[in-house]
Amino acid sequence: MGKESMWALLIFVAAIRGSLAGIPREIHLLRPHSGSAGERVHGLYCLSWRLGVETHNIKNWNTVPRECEGYVGHYMLHQYREDSKVVAREAVLYAKSLKLAGDGKDVWVFDIDETSLSNLPYYAEHGFGVEPLNPTQFGQWILTGKAPALPETLELYRELLKLGIKPIFLTGRPEDARNITSSNLRNAGFRTWEMLILKGSAYSETTAVVYKSSERRKVEESGYRIVGNIGDQWSDLLGIHVGNRTFKLPNPMYYIS
Amino acid sequence: MGKESMWALLIFVAAIRGSLAGIPREIHLLRPHSGSAGERVHGLYCLSWRLGVETHNIKNWNTVPRECEGYVGHYMLHQYREDSKVVAREAVLYAKSLKLAGDGKDVWVFDIDETSLSNLPYYAEHGFGVEPLNPTQFGQWILTGKAPALPETLELYRELLKLGIKPIFLTGRPEDARNITSSNLRNAGFRTWEMLILKGSAYSETTAVVYKSSERRKVEESGYRIVGNIGDQWSDLLGIHVGNRTFKLPNPMYYIS
Repeated sequence: MGKESMWALLIFVAAIRGSLAGIPREIHLLRPHSGSAGERVHGLYCLSWRLGVETHNIKNWNTVPRECEGYVGHYMLHQYREDSKVVAREAVLYAKSLKLAGDGKDVWVFDIDETSLSNLPYYAEHGFGVEPLNPTQFGQWILTGKAPALPETLELYRELLKLGIKPIFLTGRPEDARNITSSNLRNAGFRTWEMLILKGSAYSETTAVVYKSSERRKVEESGYRIVGNIGDQWSDLLGIHVGNRTFKLPNPMYYIS
Repeated sequence: MGKESMWALLIFVAAIRGSLAGIPREIHLLRPHSGSAGERVHGLYCLSWRLGVETHNIKNWNTVPRECEGYVGHYMLHQYREDSKVVAREAVLYAKSLKLAGDGKDVWVFDIDETSLSNLPYYAEHGFGVEPLNPTQFGQWILTGKAPALPETLELYRELLKLGIKPIFLTGRPEDARNITSSNLRNAGFRTWEMLILKGSAYSETTAVVYKSSERRKVEESGYRIVGNIGDQWSDLLGIHVGNRTFKLPNPMYYIS
């Protein structure tokens, strides 16, 4: 067997083995990066970068590292859903373990973007977070009202309703987007809620942590108990009145402080 | 070339490629699990499980899911080091960004096991966390004093010393293990420290979160400023007096509350 055909076989077998074992790897770089022997393997670094982001070791980042576009794109189209499923499943297990008062005051806080609704159709067209956000274009996408549900969160939402835990949506979307957000949520399957809290103009200069903490405090001061809180950003889950337990969904595409 | 020698070569080359490129894949299931078309792909679930653990969505788990032994073992021997590198690098970047008083009161808290020292030689012989911990055997391993440094943490330690930030080791190891722990740390390259705090018998019934919080409070009450804190367990990083910024190293092998 010649040297070349040997290598072709090695690569072929390695690929088969990989796809059978379900191990993620870069199969379609959206913008291929050249690489040769001895060069840094982007995928490996990007995997570590994403873990760093998810564990909040890496903070306040602006855009996805350019070399990680292919990796993040691939992740979002594959492993992302599996990862979300495990988070939602833990949340359901936790919710079922609660002893609820049954007085209608137990609530669960849901973030909206990349938590209840998915903007993946938008980000897939815009480099999966490699491009800096274009607020005009993103705003136009939001106004279409066509964001699909993140199915794992919708499943959690349904389980919580069954348990008598009421959903509260708390989003960084502006008050102006109330109507389109309501109809988008309903069309995506989130048909009822106790509150839908959007970011009022009074908060325009405040961070998400401050805005969301402040609104959660109001919720608890109104007599509700936040038994759970789910979001894709650490700023959904840090601060005060975060809830009895928090759940972090993955999002390697953007960071909100 | 015969079939057997071909496979030997494939495996050899795959191993070489793996070590060169460091690309994660399941090359050695310690206890092979059968799988056929349509069955659940363990690797995918285990990847999500590990992310759930690292992000603290999954808490209070006892042992690694049996189906994930091969996955976790592979992870620990490959991607783990890459992931640790990114964490340590962020910690160094952060430390270098600090404006230090230069009064000798800036300290950094290091956990020991799976943070400063690695027990991977032990865990590699005991199913990478699939087996419940055998305290007797693990104790014997600790007493050998042969745990190697986690190289990424050693690098961070050295950078911090250069910056004038003093290390404090805070460990769940018992006070009885002080001598062997000191010599193990020194032999592994951690040659100096401001304090080495081991778990006294007064804390025997308390969780790591409570014990470590209490000891960190004493440290700050003595006039030190904890500018950073690194550990592999969330119980190293939660509670009070956690430090100005915390860093979570990966550890999918065991959970300490």
